[in-house]
Amino acid sequence: MDEKELRARAAADLELIREKRPLVHQITNYVVMNITANITLLVGASPVMAHTREEVVDMVGLAGALVLNPGTLEPAWVEAMMMAGKRAGELGIPVVLDPVGAGATPYRTETNLKFLEELDLSIIRGNSGEIGALSGAGGTVVGVDSIEGVADPAEVTSAAARSWGNVVAITGERDIISNGETAVAVDNGHRWLTSVTGTGCMATTMIASFAAVEEDHLVAAAAALACYGLAAEIGAGEAGGPGTFQAAMFDALYNMTPERLEEGARISVITPC
Amino acid sequence: MDEKELRARAAADLELIREKRPLVHQITNYVVMNITANITLLVGASPVMAHTREEVVDMVGLAGALVLNPGTLEPAWVEAMMMAGKRAGELGIPVVLDPVGAGATPYRTETNLKFLEELDLSIIRGNSGEIGALSGAGGTVVGVDSIEGVADPAEVTSAAARSWGNVVAITGERDIISNGETAVAVDNGHRWLTSVTGTGCMATTMIASFAAVEEDHLVAAAAALACYGLAAEIGAGEAGGPGTFQAAMFDALYNMTPERLEEGARISVITPC
Amino acid sequence: MDEKELRARAAADLELIREKRPLVHQITNYVVMNITANITLLVGASPVMAHTREEVVDMVGLAGALVLNPGTLEPAWVEAMMMAGKRAGELGIPVVLDPVGAGATPYRTETNLKFLEELDLSIIRGNSGEIGALSGAGGTVVGVDSIEGVADPAEVTSAAARSWGNVVAITGERDIISNGETAVAVDNGHRWLTSVTGTGCMATTMIASFAAVEEDHLVAAAAALACYGLAAEIGAGEAGGPGTFQAAMFDALYNMTPERLEEGARISVITPC
Repeated sequence: MDEKELRARAAADLELIREKRPLVHQITNYVVMNITANITLLVGASPVMAHTREEVVDMVGLAGALVLNPGTLEPAWVEAMMMAGKRAGELGIPVVLDPVGAGATPYRTETNLKFLEELDLSIIRGNSGEIGALSGAGGTVVGVDSIEGVADPAEVTSAAARSWGNVVAITGERDIISNGETAVAVDNGHRWLTSVTGTGCMATTMIASFAAVEEDHLVAAAAALACYGLAAEIGAGEAGGPGTFQAAMFDALYNMTPERLEEGARISVITPC
Repeated sequence: MDEKELRARAAADLELIREKRPLVHQITNYVVMNITANITLLVGASPVMAHTREEVVDMVGLAGALVLNPGTLEPAWVEAMMMAGKRAGELGIPVVLDPVGAGATPYRTETNLKFLEELDLSIIRGNSGEIGALSGAGGTVVGVDSIEGVADPAEVTSAAARSWGNVVAITGERDIISNGETAVAVDNGHRWLTSVTGTGCMATTMIASFAAVEEDHLVAAAAALACYGLAAEIGAGEAGGPGTFQAAMFDALYNMTPERLEEGARISVITPC
Repeated sequence: MDEKELRARAAADLELIREKRPLVHQITNYVVMNITANITLLVGASPVMAHTREEVVDMVGLAGALVLNPGTLEPAWVEAMMMAGKRAGELGIPVVLDPVGAGATPYRTETNLKFLEELDLSIIRGNSGEIGALSGAGGTVVGVDSIEGVADPAEVTSAAARSWGNVVAITGERDIISNGETAVAVDNGHRWLTSVTGTGCMATTMIASFAAVEEDHLVAAAAALACYGLAAEIGAGEAGGPGTFQAAMFDALYNMTPERLEEGARISVITPC
């Protein structure tokens, strides 16, 4: 698939989300629940936050995609994530993992490794340090920030994707996405994204929204990150700093047209198969 | 009571909230806690979020109204809601239930039916699908969205109010509120409310703030929804999309005067007793 | 230390935060997690929210400061706060307590008194009623609002600081900070801060961010409150009400320079030692 085709697919997928309005079930952290619910609505999908063992299996059965984001993890939530993730696997529903802070504490690292081992995950999105920590490629995570990234993100992403058997995305100034064979870069975005909390979590929710309508998970992740980054670029032009930027980016996402996305998406194939 | 009187009561109630500054105790979901606390402050009341069994009975004793919003429910929270709701009933404090996502999973439906059965609820506010699911009138809920509403909201609202013995509000493009005898419609609002998460939850908190000062719960609900919808209309005029809309609506609510509300409230009596 | 020196230290500390980017570990309430994470990023530090007993001891070991904010407390969280607080004490990491709603219910009051007794707290920041309730100086708290403050905040703050052996700050229209010997006032701020939820919690997080780089906790608290209040003043000038104010204040904090802070900080020494 070449770059022109990827941009066209991104535009078509955005249209599909708005037409189908898939339910995106999110078991996610307390910090971002409000903003990831909003990003889901703004792109055109329908969010639901449900985390208790009494209902996650029922809820995920209604969903087009499942987000697992253990950013404020604790044992009961981890257990519910595992239950929902297993059910999603049985039903063929795509599962997107955001391993927030993996590498910072043993509990975070072990929990995410257990998800990687026991669940059929479709896409994993993290920062350079998180993916480095989980894949054994190095990198340093302090709190939830990647203090020192991996040396070669494209190589690490592709190796992790091959090893885990799914699509892996490292996001940063340049986003890298790989399915183990093809690696793609997305260059949309804005530096203010690093001064707003939960922007990585919102990227993950965008990916899940696209994965609910797009079977090729490499395409879904690239399209979602381009759409999100482009909304950030447009929003930044309207804002006076990272505070007003968030709402302006939300407006830009809501007002995004498939045409605008096709024109503005900066997706490059960096390792064609 | 005719429409002119209802508008005058809405204005007087807004003034009373700002004078008395009632405490609105909210046991609510993680997604909306920040924004429902803000809406409480902006209308002129005082919010407190307290959910643990160790203190809910004490806290509700200080309150002018109690909100039960099981949007991200789990057993310990449901138990605390039941404790607080019972105590509020003993003390004559109005209780407003928001049955978020009732109909989507058995656990949500059963929990809300248990609240309806065991608590002395003053007002129930939901979307068409939620009220339909709980009252047996039909409608389809996927996640927390009403995918298919009930056929005749006015009829369903009135029947539910009679059956449950309280005031029931179905909110949507046109809000319908009934106490089983009189049904009232509110036509304030803006389509962007459907693209921001938690707007139904904020409506519920508005209702509780008005119910803390207004003994007639039909009037409280109609006044609150008119005030909220009018703030949304004014805010939308200042905004570029649903992102900037939320803050603009907050400004409009803070800047709302009783006079502006009396003038702009679009309340109609649709079934006079 | 005179007022000119305090302003210079505030400016130097802001520069240090941006240079060192300390991790601020926050075990805080659900209502404010998003906005306190944002305020941490905007001032230049790095936030992490981690609350489970399985990881708080590991996480606090990476931190430059710890915030304990039991605003939506429950037993498991209180236990984790105690564990993290003890570990911070062993490691010499400053701990800042925000006793949200102390005085409103016995559970809140007792929990905070236990923290005061068992932990080596560096700074306590509360409203007048909360500090009054904990120190036995009077004041009335309903929900999380100080309905009736203490008669003489400077006297109460100093007495509490002497009795507890740390720095105490009562924030309000005029903020008072004391280490038991010297009391300092900060007059920056804006009335809209009382119409946005979590503004006290954000002040506490600001203090922790400064305490991570400034060893004199009296200076850290005064500098943080001046910086925060000045951002509020600047933001208010750009906003139409408390809704748009929050984002505008965030922009102002992000855009704050050490020079601007040194010039605009209104810090007075009210009881020189």
